[in-house]
Amino acid sequence: MAAPPSAASSPSGSPSLSDTDFPPVLCTVDVVLLTLMGGTLHAVLLQREDGPHRGAWALPGGFIHAQEDGTAWDAAARVLREKTGIESPYLEQLATYSGAGRDPRGWSVSIVYCALVPAELLAGERGCTRGEGTGARWQLAPVGALPALAFDHADMVGLAVARVRSKSQYSSLPVYFCGERMTLPQLQSVYEAVLGEPVNKVSFRRKIDELGMLEPVDGLLESGAAHRPAQVYRLREEFRRSLSVVARGLNS
Amino acid sequence: MAAPPSAASSPSGSPSLSDTDFPPVLCTVDVVLLTLMGGTLHAVLLQREDGPHRGAWALPGGFIHAQEDGTAWDAAARVLREKTGIESPYLEQLATYSGAGRDPRGWSVSIVYCALVPAELLAGERGCTRGEGTGARWQLAPVGALPALAFDHADMVGLAVARVRSKSQYSSLPVYFCGERMTLPQLQSVYEAVLGEPVNKVSFRRKIDELGMLEPVDGLLESGAAHRPAQVYRLREEFRRSLSVVARGLNS
Repeated sequence: MAAPPSAASSPSGSPSLSDTDFPPVLCTVDVVLLTLMGGTLHAVLLQREDGPHRGAWALPGGFIHAQEDGTAWDAAARVLREKTGIESPYLEQLATYSGAGRDPRGWSVSIVYCALVPAELLAGERGCTRGEGTGARWQLAPVGALPALAFDHADMVGLAVARVRSKSQYSSLPVYFCGERMTLPQLQSVYEAVLGEPVNKVSFRRKIDELGMLEPVDGLLESGAAHRPAQVYRLREEFRRSLSVVARGLNS
Repeated sequence: MAAPPSAASSPSGSPSLSDTDFPPVLCTVDVVLLTLMGGTLHAVLLQREDGPHRGAWALPGGFIHAQEDGTAWDAAARVLREKTGIESPYLEQLATYSGAGRDPRGWSVSIVYCALVPAELLAGERGCTRGEGTGARWQLAPVGALPALAFDHADMVGLAVARVRSKSQYSSLPVYFCGERMTLPQLQSVYEAVLGEPVNKVSFRRKIDELGMLEPVDGLLESGAAHRPAQVYRLREEFRRSLSVVARGLNS
């Protein structure tokens, strides 16, 4: 192991701030807010009202506010609340994008988060102008047919979708797309929509059982048109903000 | 969907820099450099020569240099080279740690990378003082028995180990711990050491075959003491800097 030319600029901790005398790095967060509509994953996009990329569609995002945000997670939750009015129970760090070239204003870092919510939370019409506040336009775009997005936001959506699909194989993640109550056939269609493939009913029910995340709502059955009434379930309290995970995937 | 109080501080792009008039965020990278020694994962630690946490053990890390680093990945590769003399073929982003409380010098972000190298690359004695340069002390510490580490670096090592174990189930990742050439029995012991459990020989060989990452070195056999000579393999060119991944895990 060769000797270091200098150990002065150590870890995330160096002797002093002297070696931070560089052009400052812009620190932002961006949130890929996903929902399931008509069996398809959709992302929430806002139209940029100012430059750079004025008028382009982009993810909800913003600068870290060092005085008010405790962590980048707090910044992402604040940005989501301020820009969409939504408090997502699931808000997970995905990856960090960085570099000299991604934002014309300077060297920038964007810590990207993924949020999942039921479609009912996004009440409002697609592509409409929101009446209150700034009137910023927003849309729910199918992740397979996104418009051109500002910055590297299209890559971020792609990464979020891949992560959600992969995690859904072995966890309770897709329940965040459901409302408070669901039947097993409803939950199975949600899993199938997210995974993009049919799921075997027997192995699905076994996995859900293993995950132990649902509890029956006493005495509540939902009668579908063509089927016999199905038991209604809700997510157990302890899984409303954390995932349940099994060792093996749904289709293995 | 409620209207946003303000759409002015947009994505990783806002109207101007006006809303970045906040205390600056310190942007750093830290690298968890892992190797396999005596069948156990070890992490490279450097002793901090200055405050904060002067004298404490810490991961190799440093500030992003906006004028010279193209991306945070470049910063991590540079820091690793400068502090350890190592160019790791595998250097992957793990997660980003952030917040007001993790560094006494201010609100900070650390983008954490994981690097894997063969133990032979870390020639030098454990705990020794390196003769050249600054004489910064370093050590290779078993990940299960780390000394106290500065900042949140112990969490970072824990996350890296969990990620490496999980990825090794279904990818070629552990080959980065091997030298240029290996026999299948040697590679199997590396997988077993990383996973911390025995691997079935038949299913191991099938997975390695599926991964398609190895090619035999023509005419080269290694004769072990107690076994018949084993074919020597090397990693195919195309996998030296990217992973091969199979759909199902090694033990599934």
